[in-house]
Amino acid sequence: MERPATSVDVEPPATVQGVGELATLARILPRLPRGARTDLGPGDDAAVVSAPDGRFVVTTDLMVHGPDFRLAWSTPYDLGWKAAASNLADVAAMGAVPTALVVALAVPGDTPVTDLEALADGLRDACAVMAPGCGVVGGDLSVSATMTIAVTAFGDLEGRPPVTRDGAREGDVVAVSGALGRSARGLELLFRLGVDHDGVPDRAAATALRERDPDVGWQLAPTPPIVDGPIAARAGATAMLDLSDGLALDAGRVARASGLVVDLDSSALGGDPAAALAGGEDHSLLATFPPGAALPGGFRAIGVMRAVGSGEPRVVVDGGDAGPEGGWDPYRLWSGERG
Amino acid sequence: MERPATSVDVEPPATVQGVGELATLARILPRLPRGARTDLGPGDDAAVVSAPDGRFVVTTDLMVHGPDFRLAWSTPYDLGWKAAASNLADVAAMGAVPTALVVALAVPGDTPVTDLEALADGLRDACAVMAPGCGVVGGDLSVSATMTIAVTAFGDLEGRPPVTRDGAREGDVVAVSGALGRSARGLELLFRLGVDHDGVPDRAAATALRERDPDVGWQLAPTPPIVDGPIAARAGATAMLDLSDGLALDAGRVARASGLVVDLDSSALGGDPAAALAGGEDHSLLATFPPGAALPGGFRAIGVMRAVGSGEPRVVVDGGDAGPEGGWDPYRLWSGERG
Repeated sequence: MERPATSVDVEPPATVQGVGELATLARILPRLPRGARTDLGPGDDAAVVSAPDGRFVVTTDLMVHGPDFRLAWSTPYDLGWKAAASNLADVAAMGAVPTALVVALAVPGDTPVTDLEALADGLRDACAVMAPGCGVVGGDLSVSATMTIAVTAFGDLEGRPPVTRDGAREGDVVAVSGALGRSARGLELLFRLGVDHDGVPDRAAATALRERDPDVGWQLAPTPPIVDGPIAARAGATAMLDLSDGLALDAGRVARASGLVVDLDSSALGGDPAAALAGGEDHSLLATFPPGAALPGGFRAIGVMRAVGSGEPRVVVDGGDAGPEGGWDPYRLWSGERG
Repeated sequence: MERPATSVDVEPPATVQGVGELATLARILPRLPRGARTDLGPGDDAAVVSAPDGRFVVTTDLMVHGPDFRLAWSTPYDLGWKAAASNLADVAAMGAVPTALVVALAVPGDTPVTDLEALADGLRDACAVMAPGCGVVGGDLSVSATMTIAVTAFGDLEGRPPVTRDGAREGDVVAVSGALGRSARGLELLFRLGVDHDGVPDRAAATALRERDPDVGWQLAPTPPIVDGPIAARAGATAMLDLSDGLALDAGRVARASGLVVDLDSSALGGDPAAALAGGEDHSLLATFPPGAALPGGFRAIGVMRAVGSGEPRVVVDGGDAGPEGGWDPYRLWSGERG
C-alpha cells in the first residue's frame, strides 16, 4: 500500500552538525574521483600526486556565499561543478592538463549532509566531463556561518613551458575558445527575473528561468573548454589566459603583459559585441597564435596583436577605443544588499 | 617639533573595500617569500612549482573566524603564522620538505589593508623560521562576512616513499618531537581569563595573559618542529602524523591504521600526562621507529608498538586503558556562543 506523502512523514534531513565531521567525510569521500595521477589519496596528513615532468601548475580560488553565489539560485551540485570548472580553467590556461583538486569546505552546521554529497557529485561530474583523469585527492571540512568553498587545482605541463600572458608577439592571431558573455547574461537574467516581488533571490523563480533560458544554467554551472588549454599549448600558443573577468579586461592583461595592442574584430564577437566584451565568468580561453598558424581545437580568430605605436598597451575594437574595461572587484562591487 | 598623538590626528585605516582587490594584492605580494622551488610565482592564471622527484605532497586546511580563531585573541600576524604552521606540519608529517604554499583569504570589506599586510608577514616569517626556502606562490582574495583563511601546502619527498600512518610494526619505538598539551593549555587559559566580565573574548585581557604565560602565545602562533619531519623519514620512521587533535586521538589513528596497540609511558608525557594526551593543536610530530634505532632530531621516546592480542587496535597508557579519546569536531563542539 502506498503511503501518502504528507509533511508529517518527512524526517528532517541529517545535518553535518548532527552527523559529525568524520561520518560526513565518510559519506563524501567515496563519491570523489581518485584520479589517474594520484599516488596517495585522502585519509593521511597529506596526499601525493605525481608530477611527471618534475613540475606542477597550481591555482587556488575561493567561492563565498553572497558575493560569489547564492543558494537560492545555485544547487549544491552547481557549486561543486562551478568550483571545479573555474579552477580547471586556470590550470588549462597555462597549457596544462589538470591532474588533481583539493577542496576545503566551510558550511553552517545545519547544512544537510545530502547537500555536501551533491556538491561532491558536482565536483566528480565536472572532472569527468571537462578533465577526465583529474582526481579530488584531499580536502578539509569546517563550520562557518558563511558557506565557503576553497578549491586548489593542479596540472601537468607535459614538459612544455607554461603559456603565460606576456608571450604574445606583433602579428599574432588573437583567438578564443568557448562562450563570450553567456554567463554574464545569465546573471543579469537572474538578478532581474530570478527574484521575488521584493527583489530577493528566489529559488522557484530561478528554477523556472533556468528552464526557459540556457544562459542561466551556464552562469550557475559553466562548461569551459578545458581540453583546449593543452591543445593550444601543443599548437604553439604564445600567450593564454582564462576569461574570468570579461574579454575587455582580460585581453587588456595580455596587452599590458606583452607590451602590445589587442585589436579585436567586432564582427567576430557575436550578435552583441558589447556583452561579449564586458561579460565575465565564462572561463573561456583567450590565446594568441603565430600568424598563419592553423587554429586548434575550438579556437576561432577574434583579432590580432599590433604594435603599440605612440599609445599604450591596450585593447581596441575595430582599431578604435574599447571603452571602459569593467570587470569584477568583490570589494568594490558587492554589497550584502544584492542578496 | 613632535606632534602629540591625539585621536583627532588619526586617519581611519585604508580598508580592502576602499583600496580594492588589485591595489590590496599589490601591497601584499611583495611581502611574501618567493621560495627556492618556485618556477613561476603569483601574477598569472596559475603558478608553477618544481617537484624534483616527479611527485608532490599536498594538504589543505581552512581557518574560520569563530570555530578556529577569534580576532579578539589572535593578531593578523598570528593568523598568518598559524595557518602556515598547521599546514607545514601536515607536509612534514609525510616526511616531506615543504616547498610552497598558496593562500586564499576571504575578509570583511572593512578589514584594514594593514591587517592583510601583517597576515602576509606572519606567513613569511613562519616559512623563514620553520621551512626556509618555502615560498608563497599564489592565492586569492575575496570578501566575506566571516573571515576565512584557506592554505594549501606542498612538499618534496626527496625520492622517498611518504611516511603514512599504517607502517608501524610490533616493537617499534613510539616517539614525539615538539610540545604536548601547550596549545590546549593556552586555549583553556584564554577561555578562562582572556575574556571580559561577561565572558566575551577580550583583546586587552588576552594580551596581558599572553605576556604572563608563554602557552598562550603558543596556542595563537605555535612553532612545531617542521624540519624533524624529513629528518624522521631519512632516519627510517615507519609511521608518522602531526598531532592536531591530541596525542590520544592521533595515536589511535596510527594504532588502527597499523593494526597494533600504541602503549604509551606516562612518565614520558611530562608533568601532566592527561593534558598531554588530550591537548590538540600543538602540531608536534608523532612517529614510530624500528626498535634500537637512534632517535633523530628532537624526537624522544614515549612508548612502544605492541601486538593487539585478544583486543582491538587502540592506545593504552602504562599498559592500561587511555580513557576517552577526546578530539576536535567543529560541527559537534563549536557554537557561536563561545565567541
